[in-house]
Amino acid sequence: MNMQTPPRRGFPAAEFESRVEAAQRMLRAQALDALLLTTEPEFRYFSGFHSDFWLSPTRPWYLLVPLRARPIAIIPEIGAASMRGTWVEDIRTWPSPVPEDDGISLLLAALGEVSVRFGTIGVPMGAETHVRMPLNDFQRLRDGLPGKRFADATSIVRTLRMRKSEAEIDKLRHVCGCVSDAFEAFPKVATAGATEAELFRAFRIELLRCGVDKSPYLVGAAGAGGYRDIIKQPSDAEVVPGDVLIFDTGSVFDGYYSDFDRNFSFGVADPAARSAYDVVYRATDAGLAEVRPGVTTSTLWRTMARVLEEGGSRGDNVGRFGHGLGMQLTEWPSNMPGDETVLQPGMVLTLEPGMVFGDGKLMVHEENLVVREDGYELLSRRAAPEMKVIQ
Amino acid sequence: MNMQTPPRRGFPAAEFESRVEAAQRMLRAQALDALLLTTEPEFRYFSGFHSDFWLSPTRPWYLLVPLRARPIAIIPEIGAASMRGTWVEDIRTWPSPVPEDDGISLLLAALGEVSVRFGTIGVPMGAETHVRMPLNDFQRLRDGLPGKRFADATSIVRTLRMRKSEAEIDKLRHVCGCVSDAFEAFPKVATAGATEAELFRAFRIELLRCGVDKSPYLVGAAGAGGYRDIIKQPSDAEVVPGDVLIFDTGSVFDGYYSDFDRNFSFGVADPAARSAYDVVYRATDAGLAEVRPGVTTSTLWRTMARVLEEGGSRGDNVGRFGHGLGMQLTEWPSNMPGDETVLQPGMVLTLEPGMVFGDGKLMVHEENLVVREDGYELLSRRAAPEMKVIQ
Repeated sequence: MNMQTPPRRGFPAAEFESRVEAAQRMLRAQALDALLLTTEPEFRYFSGFHSDFWLSPTRPWYLLVPLRARPIAIIPEIGAASMRGTWVEDIRTWPSPVPEDDGISLLLAALGEVSVRFGTIGVPMGAETHVRMPLNDFQRLRDGLPGKRFADATSIVRTLRMRKSEAEIDKLRHVCGCVSDAFEAFPKVATAGATEAELFRAFRIELLRCGVDKSPYLVGAAGAGGYRDIIKQPSDAEVVPGDVLIFDTGSVFDGYYSDFDRNFSFGVADPAARSAYDVVYRATDAGLAEVRPGVTTSTLWRTMARVLEEGGSRGDNVGRFGHGLGMQLTEWPSNMPGDETVLQPGMVLTLEPGMVFGDGKLMVHEENLVVREDGYELLSRRAAPEMKVIQ
Repeated sequence: MNMQTPPRRGFPAAEFESRVEAAQRMLRAQALDALLLTTEPEFRYFSGFHSDFWLSPTRPWYLLVPLRARPIAIIPEIGAASMRGTWVEDIRTWPSPVPEDDGISLLLAALGEVSVRFGTIGVPMGAETHVRMPLNDFQRLRDGLPGKRFADATSIVRTLRMRKSEAEIDKLRHVCGCVSDAFEAFPKVATAGATEAELFRAFRIELLRCGVDKSPYLVGAAGAGGYRDIIKQPSDAEVVPGDVLIFDTGSVFDGYYSDFDRNFSFGVADPAARSAYDVVYRATDAGLAEVRPGVTTSTLWRTMARVLEEGGSRGDNVGRFGHGLGMQLTEWPSNMPGDETVLQPGMVLTLEPGMVFGDGKLMVHEENLVVREDGYELLSRRAAPEMKVIQ
């Protein structure tokens, strides 16, 4: 059981100060006047503003991190009360939605104020990013700032967010503990004959009982002797003896995600599935044994790939064996060939080896860990060495 | 109680055929060769592809709706199994993530194939849209298609998605029924002395018990005699007698959202809060009485605003009194001045009047409905005329 007290919600202002100072050092080094952020995790990372309201696509939210001042929030009026509870002091609002000028005049004015030294504004434009504002409005920014440039600033948010603080790790450890509890309790609430949708619902309730705030991500599938799809929504099909079920959940505590899965067999599992489970379990062990500062993500991939290949893997469709984890379900880096990220203490990663076996069935395992000076600390409770059986 | 059987999950292929045919008529009328879609709701609307996997920002997903063929899906290999379960036949995959070419070559080839008649590709670029792909990659599309143009196609997805089919309405009616049940059950599971976070968790469990798949959106706040923020995450503060609590949830069944709230008082509420409740309740009634085809969203706003003003409202910070609802928590249109959308049968809307009272407290109500030939059908079960008291 996850016996610890839940960590305090939020962060002290000092945490945001150090994030912003680190960003400002990188801005100077890259000759950028400011960072313009439009997406939820980046906005929250530098401001502390935390709301589900981002699910509504109606309103844009803008945060500017200038070279030498606290962030400037340019936000819909509906967010002002929440924003005043953060460390951000410069809050500029408009009564959004106003489709003909949804914050663009305010944002242009602020960009004009801050872009005086280099004439260049950083925006994340690279892999795993997008700009959350209407494309027409982004064009209006370009047109409204003649002589200024927008440049890619992905490396700033990527570099900073990859290494977690101890306060962030506390939240991640807590949510991973809650999810471990729920996976251990699941066999008690699951029965063959229930539908996939009913099992998803029972597991979601168990996750909440075990202390997560919510479970934005829950995918899974069951199939005779194995599953063939790991990103599926539940169906109304009954799960029957002989089925192997995977659940993979991204559950959240105070805005920080777990991301790991567990495999269950309803009645005794097919030997091929049990054998694939054993191979992927050993691949995870091999990956874990390799984790320490200085090792690269591609080395982690190769280490796991070797065990899978020797175990008869017929490939995978995921494209990588794990990734970063934190404020989003998946973050940089990727454990894969070509990603040469060097592990550093404080990086939180998933190891997620998987293989195709038999006639196209899948077996995927996943664990969550934080890289430590001397190796790693496991955040998820290690899966059982043999697949759990639900009678 | 919500006595109906849950609707079947998914849609028959005929539903997607008619959506695509309607889009193709609009493409021709706007001299566009194809619609390029990058965001989850649009992708699902035309393809039927339904997965939580969009929560991971790592991989882009592309759907092309050409002038005269079924959609073309250009997607990460991990999505192929799920995609083969849809009506889409032309599925092109790559082993994403590949940051140096994450589907761009495949997408360029497909865009080249389809953009032969007008040389123009439609992309939603207007209000309430964004392009979910790295901005650098969008620039590569522009550069890789010399002589071709990208044009704003917001009006196509806006027009089509605003009017729901009966199969969509069935899902919306079901989820609203489940949430109505959960709100009615909430006083039985809530007690003063619990923290906000504990009440959120208890309510989430109740929502699942009542049949929702999940509750991506749950915001709320409690405060002595009223709340001051309606988009807040839960705190660890205890809710005590005298507090007024609002919960506002976007819960989901098979990918379709409810979006309505309820207000509760712990112990007897302050007379000012009870009076504000009455004003906003009557504003909702006045709005409902106005709903029928031909009326505009700005008329709905004015009708509700008049009752609120007469009742002593000191304004609001939401910017509108309700909005469209369906595959997203909020959709077009907005009930507000300047939005002159004419109501049509099949439009699903929220009415969401709110007011500031006393020293800056808020009172917000919300109901969900579908516009019918002769008026409307309520999807949420109407709130009680007096605020529910939790002892």
